[in-house]
Order: sequence, then C-alpha cells, then structure tokens
Amino acid sequence: MTWPTEPIRLQEVSPRDGLQIEPRFVATADKIHLINGLSAAGFTRIEVSSFVSPRAVPALADAADVFSGIKRQHGVIYVALVPNLHGAERALQAGANELNMVVSASETHNRANMRMTPDESLAAFSDIARAAEGGHVSLNGTVATAFGCPFEGAQSAERVLALVDRLLALGCNGITLADTTGVANPRQVETLVGEVLQRLDRDRLTLHFHNTRGVGLANLLAGYQAGVRRFDASLGGLGGCPFAPGAAGNICTEDAAAMCEAMRIPTGLDIGALIALSRTLPQLVGHDVPGQVAQAGCAGDLHPIPVSVVAA
Amino acid sequence: MTWPTEPIRLQEVSPRDGLQIEPRFVATADKIHLINGLSAAGFTRIEVSSFVSPRAVPALADAADVFSGIKRQHGVIYVALVPNLHGAERALQAGANELNMVVSASETHNRANMRMTPDESLAAFSDIARAAEGGHVSLNGTVATAFGCPFEGAQSAERVLALVDRLLALGCNGITLADTTGVANPRQVETLVGEVLQRLDRDRLTLHFHNTRGVGLANLLAGYQAGVRRFDASLGGLGGCPFAPGAAGNICTEDAAAMCEAMRIPTGLDIGALIALSRTLPQLVGHDVPGQVAQAGCAGDLHPIPVSVVAA
Repeated sequence: MTWPTEPIRLQEVSPRDGLQIEPRFVATADKIHLINGLSAAGFTRIEVSSFVSPRAVPALADAADVFSGIKRQHGVIYVALVPNLHGAERALQAGANELNMVVSASETHNRANMRMTPDESLAAFSDIARAAEGGHVSLNGTVATAFGCPFEGAQSAERVLALVDRLLALGCNGITLADTTGVANPRQVETLVGEVLQRLDRDRLTLHFHNTRGVGLANLLAGYQAGVRRFDASLGGLGGCPFAPGAAGNICTEDAAAMCEAMRIPTGLDIGALIALSRTLPQLVGHDVPGQVAQAGCAGDLHPIPVSVVAA
Repeated sequence: MTWPTEPIRLQEVSPRDGLQIEPRFVATADKIHLINGLSAAGFTRIEVSSFVSPRAVPALADAADVFSGIKRQHGVIYVALVPNLHGAERALQAGANELNMVVSASETHNRANMRMTPDESLAAFSDIARAAEGGHVSLNGTVATAFGCPFEGAQSAERVLALVDRLLALGCNGITLADTTGVANPRQVETLVGEVLQRLDRDRLTLHFHNTRGVGLANLLAGYQAGVRRFDASLGGLGGCPFAPGAAGNICTEDAAAMCEAMRIPTGLDIGALIALSRTLPQLVGHDVPGQVAQAGCAGDLHPIPVSVVAA
C-alpha cells in the first residue's frame, strides 16, 4: 500500500445537511454570511439549502432567500437538495447550479425520510430531470443509507447498484453514496466503491460519510485508496443523526482537510479560514460542534515551552 | 489494497493514561472495579497505573493499592509505568507483570514531562533493567512524541530509530511508538512503521495513538495495513492532551473494537461488556467522555420503525 498524492475535493454540506436538524433557526443573514465565507475558503461545490416542505424542515424554510442573498464566486457550484418537481422548480427559479436528488436504498428509510417509496421518489426524479432539460443545471443522484439502514440494517450491493443505474439512466451527472447514519466501515467502502466505479468515472462519484462512530476519516481514506476523489464534509462536523442525539455529525471539513494536507494530499482549501469560520459556529447554533482541529489546533502548531524547561 | 483479517490486539490504557490527567481523584475501589471489568472483557494487557511521584501525578498516587486490590485474570499482563529505579522497585514489589518506560524523542518534551534529558531517562532505564534482571517481569520501552512534539514539531525518523535501538539494547521485549499529542497522520504512520519493523518483529511493536484531531482510527488502520497488530486504546477515549483542553484523548477502545469487528478483524473483546463499562465512566470522572459507540450504539443496532411508516 502506498498513498496517492492526487488532490481530493471536499464538498461543503454544512448549510444544508448541517443546519437542517438544528432546533434553533439560524437567521437567513447568518446563513448567507456562512456560505460567503465558505465560497471564499476555496470550495468548488457548496450545498446551500433544501427546497423541501417548510413544515418538514423548518430550519431551511428560507432556501430561496439564501440563494438570492449569497455572493456567488466564479467556479463554485451552488447545490440545492430537491425532493420533487415542485421543489426543483423553486430551486431552478432560485438559480441553483445543481439539483441533488436523494433516494434511500432502504425502502423503510425512504418512507420515513421522504414519505414515498423509492419507486415514487424515482418517478419524481424523472419529472425533475425533464424540467431541468435544456437548462444549465446539473443533476446529482444520492443513494442514502447505501452502507446500511437504521431500521433494516445492511443493504445489498445489488440494491445500491440498481439505484445507481436508475439514477444514471435518469441523466444524473453525478452520483453520491451516502452513509446517512454513520454505519460504514473501511472494508465495506472499498468493496462497494469498487463495484460502483465499474459503472461511472471516478470524477462523477462522491462519498458522503457521517462520523457517528468515529470512523469517518478512516472511511474517507478507504474511499480515496479505492480511487474516489470527491467527498462531502461539513464545517465543524455539523449535522447530527436523529438516532444518536448528541453524537458527531457529518465528517468535519477542517479535520478532513488538515489530515489530507498533512498527508500531502492537496485540497485547495484555506485551512486557517476554515478554522476561523468553524469557530463562529457554536454561537450560530447555540452549542458546541464536534470538529476537533478548530478546538485543538493543527498538528503542526507549536506551543510555548514550559517555564520549568526554559529555566533548567 | 486489500484488508487483512488477522486479529488485532487492543491493549487497554485507561486506568493509567486515561485517569492520570483527571482533575477529580477516582477512588481506589472504583479503579479496581474498572480494571476488574476490563480484565473480564477480554484484554490481554492492561496498563494499571504509574509509579511516579504522587506530587507530579496525584491521580495515580494509589498505584500500589490498586495493584494489590485487583483480581488478576490468567493470561492478562498487568503493566506499570515507571520513570526511574525507585518507581520500578515499587512496581516490582506490587507484582507488575511488565514495566513500561517512557522516553520522548523530543528533548524539550522529555524535560517537560520527566524533568530529565532523554539520556538521563535512558540511564535510569538501564538501572531498571538491571533491577528487573532474573525476575519474571518484561520490559516495554515507549518512544513518546514519536510522530511530533508540541514544542519542537516534527521529530526525525533517525532520532526515533536511535531511541528504539537503545531501548532494544537495554533489553526491552516490546517497543511502543506513541503519538503523545495526536499529531500523526496515516502516511507518516506507514513510513515510520516500515522503518521500525526492519528492527523488530511485529509482535513486539505497539502503536499508541491519541484522537486529538479525529485521525486516531485512520492511524490505527494505517498501522494495521503496515503490519502492526498491537495498539493501545482507552475505554471511552479517556485521556486528554494538556495542550488541547477538552479535546478527545486516546483512541477509544470500544470505537476501535467495533470498527475492527465490523471489518472482520477479530479483537477477542466483548464489545457489549466494553460499552456497558464505558457508560459508567462519566459518573466516575464527572464529565462526558469522547467515545462515540457507547453513545450512538453499534453500526448494526436496529431502531424501531417510525409510526408514520408503520401506519402507511
């Protein structure tokens, strides 16, 4: 085993996947300020918000205002999550550059999350794809619970691959495999990625991990070793799991970036800017966040030599 | 890259490395109860306490009482950390099965931690080795700050390897490379381990990681991929870093064990027993602990299906 040094692309999801479960509503102006800070830190893809029912996800009820308020940087793709045609129409009107459509491998999870069967979700995505045709928007299809479901347990690779095939057939430019509740392990990542990469070019594949059980960065590296170069991450590790209250959320952007840079894997991100931005999060959401580098500093930071040693 | 399935040996250090920095003194009876629980959970090596100055480490001032109070399980090696001949004599009298001697690669760190230069530490270890000769005790030599020092930064591989050579020459049966403040990364682990494994059999080498920056389990797997089979870990992830107050401590035993078992890497540990024991820690130390599996449950745990789905 030797480590590659090819660049990794960390895609920021905190404004959507991070904030969606926060009980306290983060003011629209604060969301815009956060996203502008992320745009300046070097990301090429930022998931901005969801165009879902404001009753289902009140935290993101201001999706249209956020999209219209942010300062767009050249070269950054601003993504909207959309569950159905109505949401997609709103997202297109708001000027989203990419629509992300999420379907769970697990039928039970899809019904709990989307109140639809996976087939019904795919039918809705077909409507979305038709509405997006001819425009300048790209489509990303996400397979949620791809590494396991909190209700059903393990999902067969066949089921995941069949969904990938159907999303590709709908015209998705990109595919995301999501470990929605943080149950994946590195061996499983290697195996599933190996199968998926036989279906699409690696530049079209994203892995989305949660760090619920502490394995997030190990899963990222297992995906990288298996050939993947795009990973979702969330500033401060925002984005908990409803089945593990208080547990860690998405893998933390600045922790992932600091690890990669220390390993000579370029990320293109300004880690100092990320840390500064991450340190504003506790005030924004009203609680500590799980990210560790913003708390402990980077591995290379030096501390003053204790007085006892200096005096000796 | 393919993942091996050879067993991994997790060596428990919470009673020593975990408790040593806790500001609240954990009662001797509680320490004994914890260690007895660990012995029953399947460990083969438990670091019980330190025979250091009670002024320097008041949390472990009861080392002798702990050693005399625990119920020893057949096949478990009970380890004592010793800084000098006096400590070693006390540890031998207490019936420690193994003496762990720690010297930092960084001179500044060794002076801050031990109030000796590394050469002075090694001279003390030489006295310890003579005192242990002919007995039934084994010797382990630990190189602290092997992956970097919080005062000096990076340590050269030459420096670490020279210390390994000197510890082996003193008669150490085992060698531990310790990432004392959690600055290691997986590429560095692979490189340094490759060099060290040219000097000693892999069954004699332990890696000791802290999860200060979230990279602990990724470092463990990098070491495993590089051939190492022994890793220190701490129940609940106890064991902070003095330079990152509140940050995560040692890699968490039950998180590491759960990941390994999910990857079909046997640990020989009873994960249910570990989780139950870990959940007693917050009451013992008076604060939350960083371990994640004890909070979120194992990856394979199933949750009840939401009522909305059952009713549909």
